[in-house]
Amino acid sequence: MRIGVIGCGRWGSFIAWYLDKIGNDVTLYGRENSKNMQNFLESRKNNFLEIPKSIALTTNIKDIFDKDLIIISVGTQGLRDLLIENEKLFKEKNIPIILCMKGIEIKTGFTPTAVVRDILGENYSCGVWIGPGHVQDFTNGIPNCMVIDSDDRELVKNLVDSFSSDLIRFYYGTDLLGNEIGAGAKNVIGIAAGMLDGMNLSSLKGALMSRGTREIARLIGKMGGDETCAYGLCHLGDYEATVFSEFSNNRKFGEKFVKGEKFEKLAEGYFTTKALMDLSKKYDVELPITNAVYEIIYNEKNPKEVLENLFKRSIKMEF
Amino acid sequence: MRIGVIGCGRWGSFIAWYLDKIGNDVTLYGRENSKNMQNFLESRKNNFLEIPKSIALTTNIKDIFDKDLIIISVGTQGLRDLLIENEKLFKEKNIPIILCMKGIEIKTGFTPTAVVRDILGENYSCGVWIGPGHVQDFTNGIPNCMVIDSDDRELVKNLVDSFSSDLIRFYYGTDLLGNEIGAGAKNVIGIAAGMLDGMNLSSLKGALMSRGTREIARLIGKMGGDETCAYGLCHLGDYEATVFSEFSNNRKFGEKFVKGEKFEKLAEGYFTTKALMDLSKKYDVELPITNAVYEIIYNEKNPKEVLENLFKRSIKMEF
Repeated sequence: MRIGVIGCGRWGSFIAWYLDKIGNDVTLYGRENSKNMQNFLESRKNNFLEIPKSIALTTNIKDIFDKDLIIISVGTQGLRDLLIENEKLFKEKNIPIILCMKGIEIKTGFTPTAVVRDILGENYSCGVWIGPGHVQDFTNGIPNCMVIDSDDRELVKNLVDSFSSDLIRFYYGTDLLGNEIGAGAKNVIGIAAGMLDGMNLSSLKGALMSRGTREIARLIGKMGGDETCAYGLCHLGDYEATVFSEFSNNRKFGEKFVKGEKFEKLAEGYFTTKALMDLSKKYDVELPITNAVYEIIYNEKNPKEVLENLFKRSIKMEF
Repeated sequence: MRIGVIGCGRWGSFIAWYLDKIGNDVTLYGRENSKNMQNFLESRKNNFLEIPKSIALTTNIKDIFDKDLIIISVGTQGLRDLLIENEKLFKEKNIPIILCMKGIEIKTGFTPTAVVRDILGENYSCGVWIGPGHVQDFTNGIPNCMVIDSDDRELVKNLVDSFSSDLIRFYYGTDLLGNEIGAGAKNVIGIAAGMLDGMNLSSLKGALMSRGTREIARLIGKMGGDETCAYGLCHLGDYEATVFSEFSNNRKFGEKFVKGEKFEKLAEGYFTTKALMDLSKKYDVELPITNAVYEIIYNEKNPKEVLENLFKRSIKMEF
């Protein structure tokens, strides 16, 4: 398959590397002023991998519009602008899009594929590639399971069949909305996990997993999606990487936040927290953990107090 | 409340310590030839805590049969014998029993409360106290959430209300069968997690959590229980302690097993694996992860091959 990848950060470059490795014809695009792209053009390396010669590198986005598939790996909050900038090309070429990102657009509460449909039209073929796995592990040959989902079932079937390998086992997703909300929301639970770590309350991460999946399942259900997605690879299946791993940006962000330490940049979950709070109001569903994270990072409430109150919520049934 | 605790291992002694701390009148029983009991009689200490003077220590089991509640914390496979030995006393005094153990009886496939009902009668009031938490953390003041469940709803309500504190937040369990199967089965997932750790496949623990909860939910459902228990504190909520913690016996057992290292004694999950395989046949439900653990520890199959095959199972829907 001829595939264009937009975004040359940690995940975009890994995706290009992986798809090339399993036999596709890959072109990787990055903006001319992108530091990551400049690095690749100079040395073909980043901290995680080396981009082989078989992958074409380009800073001209037009070069990826003669492919069979476009994969986009950028921050969720930047997706809309990217699509608007290239709206004409996308509409003219009508190439299916797979999004590799986990988040919800703050200003609309839209999932990434909803942003695509908003700009490119309701029937534009697009889907997501989500689930667990660290780039560091994959490049060391450690396998994992992931999910591809789309309302375009033909696309899902083709991609799952042709992208599966000994390194990544793909499952067919069966509920796009649930998978996107689940994937985005796991970053919020990751921030909460980091906060617990930062306050020496790591053993509460078990309860966090049980209660976190529950509130996200409830949200997905209220939005009309399939609750079980919260327990699938997109959300719970990503908790090892998000709730426990040293590598997790969101976990690290939460930990540094409660310790009052500096962090280089805001984690994606920072934005998703805000977006989920808006959805919580819109769909009238309680999200106590998300709300606690929100109060701490947006309203500068005392983490100890907020998390203790969360723990002491009135005694309840579990489900 | 006047409470007798049977079993002076790590958990039994912690429970005695905790119930005393929150104001109950506690007697701790251990067999005369028990090393743990001998230690307590000599120094009132074990590696985790000190038993205060306010707790009575006894090696005469009769001393706990004048209480309001009996808590039993012994290995699941030893429960039946303990009850048979003291059947007359139990039946005569008819004191409610709370079981603090996680397992399934191999020879019958019974949950712990089913063993109690089998020996002491269908209507004997008994329940379970399960969920996450490390003794090491509790004694350091780190809180957690747990569950009490029983078909005797009055008992559940009384105990949840009177046992809750700033250290342990209790939830009302609402499905005894599901909670018991979930609590026992988490040890099998813990062994699988240790095997992944031992083979440098730790990042597959995310997928393990997602697929593990799914197969246990399926089993609970087929047995007539509430599937959601697998996602509650009794199972998923205990994964931090079981799947990720250094302290987990079951995780450690799995890790040592695949590395060919010696282990001091068999973990509870070793027995539960066998019991779950029997339930899998009896209720005609596929348990791929449990089956993989079974093949490795009982049939000495090659761990690498078995786990790779598990990973490569044919591509499927998630749910």
